[in-house]
Amino acid sequence: MAEYMGELRRTHYCGDLRECNVGETVVVCGWVAKQRDLGQLIFIDLRDRTGVVQLAFNESTEKEIFDKAFSARAEFVLCAKGVVQERSSKNPDIKTGDIEVLVEDLRVLSKAQTPPFEIVDDCKTSEDVRLKYRYLDLRRKPLQDNIIMRSKIAKVARDYFYENGFIEIETPMLIKSTPEGARDYLVPSRVHKGSFYALPQSPQIYKQLLMLSGFDRYIQLARCFRDEDLRADRQPEFTQIDMELSFASMEEIMEINEGLFKRLFKDILGKNLETPFEKMTYADAMNRYGSDKPDVRFGMEICDVSDVVKDCGFGVFSGAVKNGGSVRCIVAKNSASVLTRKEVDKLTEYVKGIGAKGLAFIRWVDDEPSCGFKKFLTDEEFNSIISTCGAEKGDVVLFVADKNSVVLPTLGALRLKVAKKLDIIPDVFKFVWIVDFPFFEFDEESGEWVAMHHPFTMPKEECLQYLDTDKGKVVAKAYDLTLNGTELSSGSIRITDYELQQKMFKALKLTDEEIEAKFGFLVEAYKYGAPPHGGMGIGLDRIAMLLSGAESLRDVTAFPKVQNASELMSQSPAPVDQESLDVLGIEVVSE
Amino acid sequence: MAEYMGELRRTHYCGDLRECNVGETVVVCGWVAKQRDLGQLIFIDLRDRTGVVQLAFNESTEKEIFDKAFSARAEFVLCAKGVVQERSSKNPDIKTGDIEVLVEDLRVLSKAQTPPFEIVDDCKTSEDVRLKYRYLDLRRKPLQDNIIMRSKIAKVARDYFYENGFIEIETPMLIKSTPEGARDYLVPSRVHKGSFYALPQSPQIYKQLLMLSGFDRYIQLARCFRDEDLRADRQPEFTQIDMELSFASMEEIMEINEGLFKRLFKDILGKNLETPFEKMTYADAMNRYGSDKPDVRFGMEICDVSDVVKDCGFGVFSGAVKNGGSVRCIVAKNSASVLTRKEVDKLTEYVKGIGAKGLAFIRWVDDEPSCGFKKFLTDEEFNSIISTCGAEKGDVVLFVADKNSVVLPTLGALRLKVAKKLDIIPDVFKFVWIVDFPFFEFDEESGEWVAMHHPFTMPKEECLQYLDTDKGKVVAKAYDLTLNGTELSSGSIRITDYELQQKMFKALKLTDEEIEAKFGFLVEAYKYGAPPHGGMGIGLDRIAMLLSGAESLRDVTAFPKVQNASELMSQSPAPVDQESLDVLGIEVVSE
Repeated sequence: MAEYMGELRRTHYCGDLRECNVGETVVVCGWVAKQRDLGQLIFIDLRDRTGVVQLAFNESTEKEIFDKAFSARAEFVLCAKGVVQERSSKNPDIKTGDIEVLVEDLRVLSKAQTPPFEIVDDCKTSEDVRLKYRYLDLRRKPLQDNIIMRSKIAKVARDYFYENGFIEIETPMLIKSTPEGARDYLVPSRVHKGSFYALPQSPQIYKQLLMLSGFDRYIQLARCFRDEDLRADRQPEFTQIDMELSFASMEEIMEINEGLFKRLFKDILGKNLETPFEKMTYADAMNRYGSDKPDVRFGMEICDVSDVVKDCGFGVFSGAVKNGGSVRCIVAKNSASVLTRKEVDKLTEYVKGIGAKGLAFIRWVDDEPSCGFKKFLTDEEFNSIISTCGAEKGDVVLFVADKNSVVLPTLGALRLKVAKKLDIIPDVFKFVWIVDFPFFEFDEESGEWVAMHHPFTMPKEECLQYLDTDKGKVVAKAYDLTLNGTELSSGSIRITDYELQQKMFKALKLTDEEIEAKFGFLVEAYKYGAPPHGGMGIGLDRIAMLLSGAESLRDVTAFPKVQNASELMSQSPAPVDQESLDVLGIEVVSE
Repeated sequence: MAEYMGELRRTHYCGDLRECNVGETVVVCGWVAKQRDLGQLIFIDLRDRTGVVQLAFNESTEKEIFDKAFSARAEFVLCAKGVVQERSSKNPDIKTGDIEVLVEDLRVLSKAQTPPFEIVDDCKTSEDVRLKYRYLDLRRKPLQDNIIMRSKIAKVARDYFYENGFIEIETPMLIKSTPEGARDYLVPSRVHKGSFYALPQSPQIYKQLLMLSGFDRYIQLARCFRDEDLRADRQPEFTQIDMELSFASMEEIMEINEGLFKRLFKDILGKNLETPFEKMTYADAMNRYGSDKPDVRFGMEICDVSDVVKDCGFGVFSGAVKNGGSVRCIVAKNSASVLTRKEVDKLTEYVKGIGAKGLAFIRWVDDEPSCGFKKFLTDEEFNSIISTCGAEKGDVVLFVADKNSVVLPTLGALRLKVAKKLDIIPDVFKFVWIVDFPFFEFDEESGEWVAMHHPFTMPKEECLQYLDTDKGKVVAKAYDLTLNGTELSSGSIRITDYELQQKMFKALKLTDEEIEAKFGFLVEAYKYGAPPHGGMGIGLDRIAMLLSGAESLRDVTAFPKVQNASELMSQSPAPVDQESLDVLGIEVVSE
């Protein structure tokens, strides 16, 4: 049986002891990180969340205590009382390296079997095994630090918004399923058999209702759920710093959120962020970076050479322009030695994999640029390409010719790939607001205009005149905050005018029945006096990942799920007994 | 169409304007609480979450603005710019009653249909209608104040625990269903068809795992879910201030939680709470108050007269004692005039409704106590009852004779009912810790001892010897915090010794298969070194209710559900389409 702490009370965390404590009698508690038996001497590194301290046992130690120290193994939990003394051989690598605790009393609070992997910072064990024993993996300092930083981020975010007059209001998690957005997780109702709750994809509808109630400034760190096939950087449940405010302009909302990031960087990383952040229109982001979440830490902007090549003899180029598309390129400066023919071939395969037909290129290694398609162009045309894109000796120029909807995202992705290959991305934080999103997107398959955002997003006032006549001209009061090529946060001003809302629905070709079925109670709510309002949802997990430098959301989530949405530790989800299904009035369909 | 704020920016909240602002040009935004048209003068009470301010329009007002004010109706949303001036007739009942805003510019941001009920503090409309239009009900000041206070409580609780070294860690909401406790809400998995997640009834298992990971001090304001038939004071989803800490004694844990309440009362109500709180054993609470959550704001303690009546001629009394039960009573002091024969008959019906066979009583109105069963007793026996329970002229004594498991809870409930009837409960806050809970409860039906708490609760060390031999003697390291007869919070020290845990399971007659199926991964986790730990779960909703003086949890929950677990506003839960069920591989069983 284990021993108990009894009358002992912890006086210090392990990692907090210093030379100034020498001579003090202390009580520390923790896990055995390492035990070294030197015959007459035993040393134990005792670990808690603050760090490690060395326990010493020598010839002056009572035999019973010495024997316990002798038997201690990795991950045993100990409580040790002793006097802090200066070490004979100091360890400058750890904070407590100058001292040790000469133990007078020791309790083995818990023995431990040999763990399936060693608890070390740099653990090579496969992630699946570590996830199965997540409680052991979470003993490792890098993961503990991430989880603790995440907690601090949440605290700073709350403090910031509270100081700015926001009220945290909890919205329900058992809500009505809405047929918009991603797939809902459903929860069968026992009382109302055949009916279901849904888990919220976000508190969107409720926070809008809170604005109608006059709460004016709302914040919530809200758990959100999406039943989607997981990519590497998604979790089925995630946390959103969700905010909404009334009577404020889009600019004020953006400013408040910039303040949050300024505060987070200051308080968490000790870094000063310059605000206001750069603002870029959606059109600019697409044209210059081929992405609505541009990584602007480096140049290599996309250059349009359509005008130069539109009548040239190279059919791939002139044809693309004639079909309404374009020919664009990126210039990888001083890359000719790295981007060899072989590397460019790999890039060609890459762009084919993401939907482009191929890649044309110029490699300018020697005095003259070498180029496969040069022979189809006049010298004037070729030189005009070079001067348009500003290529110089040593550069590689990569071209894509196609519809714009292929050219831009392809070059956007290629730009990132090349920059990583060339290792030219500086380790800085570059925030960019993306604004002036198109309100409608033309869906070529259905031949219909569809809303790019949820249908409660407000169009800019000056575009209202085009709602019926020229949908492509309508710009949304929506804004995304991006950082280093990642979307951190997304927001908009909401439609609060009941008549305009009806008009928007009609513009989206919704019937009255559809409006009622999809948005009934929310539409009703806007009839009784609605303040102008808007807000944002900011991914807490993603912020934690960026600030901690973690490589995946799993590294900032205490108990994450893997790609098939299961938790390896508890083996969840799992079958349940028939009785549990019977009371819900549902059954599992056999395959 | 509505107007926009345009260049106007709110400068003040309505309720914040005071005489010191006279002469300033301000911009305020809000809802029309009232419009009074006096011909040449119009007054509008404009309301936001801070209060109301009077807007004035007079002969100096531009006609266009005056016309807008004329057309404004209740709940229209306005933005008004104007100069603060002293009122000619002041209103001492509101904070802004000394001033008004003489409006120069007015925007009607939103018109409003006539709401289904008037937005006034004291609204008589039925709760069902108000819940259907919850966003309107939430405009009423009493509800807004509750929600805002709840937000403050959460903030203070977080601050307190953070200051004490606790880390907030988010635990998963899609977890494995465990067959313990109340009924789980289940969530069908799409990826793993036929399998289910459960929503957590509490983060219990995860917080214990976090202690095993060494996080040492954990806090979370966690949403919890229980699929139970709702009583008046339950919600299917609720929020728990959930905490756990390692290397601390039961007394330290209780002390830390006392500190929380001290802080909450200070910061929220401005009241000083005396600590430490009273501690009472479970046995005392049951014997003196007939409840494990005793309301100790008043006396009327239960008195045991079994010894006096055990051989008396009144078979109801002597029989109860002979069968191993007891005869006990409460004395309602000076109540004879209120507790008439008719009232006592009502109380008899009441106790019959909660499982007692009946009620014997003494009403001492005149010089002599009047009593139906007196004739069966000797004078000595009767006088001995009177002296044992201390009854005096003017009192009513109410007796229950039965098994203790009937007598005590019946008198406990009766005591509360009588106290309310007599209106003798003072408006104070009386916290009591209930400690020394029995570990096992003897289930008469099955003839087995069953655990009263979850099977991870630690027995007191000195009782370990009785685990096999005398289960009734084993006391749990569990503690409940009660306030004014309500259980606020419940906690325990957990078993962390793997061998002891096995012993506990065996004592509970669990087979190895059951242990594995029910607690497999958690049991495994305790093999690798476990610190002593314990914690509590504290009902945030209930605290908010108590501190705000609200009468139901619905009044401190932004979007509550009603007794059948539905939300009247969104009409949730609701049927979903077949496709949604198909992808989950489930179907609804027709009745």
